Amino acid sequence: MVARWQEGAAGRLQEAALRLYAERGYEQTTVADIASEAGVTARTFFRHYADKREVLFAGSERLRDGMLEALDAVPPAAGPMAAVAAALDASAVLLGRDHAHSRTRGAVISANAELMERELIKMATLAAAMADELRKRGVPAGDASLAAEAGAVVLRVAFEQWLNGPPEASLRDLMRATMARLPQVAAP
Amino acid sequence: MVARWQEGAAGRLQEAALRLYAERGYEQTTVADIASEAGVTARTFFRHYADKREVLFAGSERLRDGMLEALDAVPPAAGPMAAVAAALDASAVLLGRDHAHSRTRGAVISANAELMERELIKMATLAAAMADELRKRGVPAGDASLAAEAGAVVLRVAFEQWLNGPPEASLRDLMRATMARLPQVAAP
Repeated sequence: MVARWQEGAAGRLQEAALRLYAERGYEQTTVADIASEAGVTARTFFRHYADKREVLFAGSERLRDGMLEALDAVPPAAGPMAAVAAALDASAVLLGRDHAHSRTRGAVISANAELMERELIKMATLAAAMADELRKRGVPAGDASLAAEAGAVVLRVAFEQWLNGPPEASLRDLMRATMARLPQVAAP
Repeated sequence: MVARWQEGAAGRLQEAALRLYAERGYEQTTVADIASEAGVTARTFFRHYADKREVLFAGSERLRDGMLEALDAVPPAAGPMAAVAAALDASAVLLGRDHAHSRTRGAVISANAELMERELIKMATLAAAMADELRKRGVPAGDASLAAEAGAVVLRVAFEQWLNGPPEASLRDLMRATMARLPQVAAP
């Protein structure tokens, strides 16, 4: 779940890759195909991406950094879930930019077990980074894990809803609604 | 997070494998080593396990089936989280059997990125299976995902606490306490 935010040749390569993955299938597409489709050389491709898989996950660090910065900007007194909510708001800005792009990317990833694993790992890493940050702010370890992992669940469920819903829906609003729903659903 | 519940040769092979993985490292251990340590032939090994990785994940289906049966036994009127709580209780019976075994297994898995990915995937599959089951019971899709994924978070956080705590602690009690804590932590 990484949105389009690459610019210049990197952005063109990403669009070209996504188009080919969707048309021919991920396995059937080579780096040479992508470079040719984007009108650049393979050498240029490798200046921007380590391999054809990384095209789909570019921007993960930027997403993580943006989320952790937003989390840190919330005063510790506000409690762990308020900090996680701010991180989710920040994620919505990056992830909610381009509905069509995100839908195509989601379809490519769902069609490939290896890519789905990669997506799972990225999400687990994000949750672990938020939990670490909460612990550094003095949140007890158990609560930090619970809040961070619950936040990751909210992000995933809302993102899925957004992907399957109308393009004009706001990912941020869906995340906030899902966040508000969680304690109700989780109540005994 | 699969506990020891294999019997006979399968159980002896599992114990032998875990001992060798912990002593020599997972990568350095071969199927021949494991069979020899358990006093059986490699042929016997392959009658029970597809490969050396599967020794660590044997019982996943039994865990899933036990959890889904417990979930289904809860009347739909009780709400999705009550059904998930019953599934977690059932998981604690299987997962909470052998603290020393589970600690060793956890250490082997944490030391290897590929095994950690496998563990993540198994947990995601478990959450998806619970969400499916809830949907079949008429729970709206969003709530079903939230409840099932929240349950998986509770399971993981409580299991981690149990692994790092005293052997006499009850995994079921830790899961219940974590489950009760979730709506408090998740409250805005």
